[in-house]
Amino acid sequence: MSRVTKVEFLYDFGSPNAYLAHEAIPAIAARVGLEFEYVPVLLGGVFKATGNVSPAVSTQGIKNKGEYLMREVARFVRRHGIAHFNFNPFFPVNTLQIMRGAVVAQREGIAAEYIDAVFAHTWGAAPKKMDDAEVIRAALEESGLPAERIMAGIADSSVKQQLIENTQRAVERGVFGMPAFFVGAEHYFGKEAFAEIEQDLARGFARDGAGG
Amino acid sequence: MSRVTKVEFLYDFGSPNAYLAHEAIPAIAARVGLEFEYVPVLLGGVFKATGNVSPAVSTQGIKNKGEYLMREVARFVRRHGIAHFNFNPFFPVNTLQIMRGAVVAQREGIAAEYIDAVFAHTWGAAPKKMDDAEVIRAALEESGLPAERIMAGIADSSVKQQLIENTQRAVERGVFGMPAFFVGAEHYFGKEAFAEIEQDLARGFARDGAGG
Repeated sequence: MSRVTKVEFLYDFGSPNAYLAHEAIPAIAARVGLEFEYVPVLLGGVFKATGNVSPAVSTQGIKNKGEYLMREVARFVRRHGIAHFNFNPFFPVNTLQIMRGAVVAQREGIAAEYIDAVFAHTWGAAPKKMDDAEVIRAALEESGLPAERIMAGIADSSVKQQLIENTQRAVERGVFGMPAFFVGAEHYFGKEAFAEIEQDLARGFARDGAGG
Repeated sequence: MSRVTKVEFLYDFGSPNAYLAHEAIPAIAARVGLEFEYVPVLLGGVFKATGNVSPAVSTQGIKNKGEYLMREVARFVRRHGIAHFNFNPFFPVNTLQIMRGAVVAQREGIAAEYIDAVFAHTWGAAPKKMDDAEVIRAALEESGLPAERIMAGIADSSVKQQLIENTQRAVERGVFGMPAFFVGAEHYFGKEAFAEIEQDLARGFARDGAGG
């Protein structure tokens, strides 16, 4: 396929499945001919607006289901050759600061570098407590990012407002959890959705927004 | 791939996603080189043993999620060219009789015909109340199956016991819902798992039971 199709990727750093999707994206984008546009959305805001909860909560008290989700993660890691994945020992991480930081990074033109760094510091080789301002600052510095500028930008009211708007818009479009993907108006949920997106694009269903 | 890999398909007629998987299986089996072995399991028994509930229940009160699952179904139907799918108006159907009937049909050597017929009568062109003995009997007759023999067999205590054992064994192997698939000891859940199974087989992960 020579035509590049745009896929919006709605993410929150607090979602392990969003991290896994992020790690898998470069190879999928190259192989299938997709361009991923990253949209920062506050997962806690989505949960509050929809009444949804994380799989860690929804599988509590259900025999076998939590174990299956862990198995599915292990298979995904192996299938996509993901180099580092460690469940964050401070989970659930309050991602308000680092998600606002993603909006700042977009405005500074360093979104790709920031996203790579923050996902890695949250779920990579040495996961950190990424809701602690000092930990965030040190992590950004370690990754060669302008920590002071980003931390200052986080307090900007228009940054806060942008993240709120992204989150409200996501819920209006049908989002209830993350990772979420959009091809036009067509919504796909979860890291397993890559196969669905690929199959639908190959059949030309999603491209015109008439997926079903 | 010339080697045919066996995939166990654990099903209950009451699951719309098991029906959709059943409809998609022939083309996938032929294309990928898989042989599906159908294992009747009582979903109600799995739910009782694990504390799980159907998506129809678990998505109640969650904005967007139920709508998404319906959209996912519509895409699956289109993607796999499924001729008939109508949500059963009597859902949830108590499947105890028709699942026991599946054990009878296995013993009679008519499992394939029985499974096709009962899935079609539950979710196909004209979905019926398939927990009513008279409705079941008429449906089996309409499909040219030995209705009297099957209905009599349903009362057999060894048939009842077989279904209980299948269900207990499924839970012991990690099942919490259906459709469930096994490639060796490797468990896959849900109709979207076909893509995962196919990818893992292509990489040789699942075949040796060392999937992750």
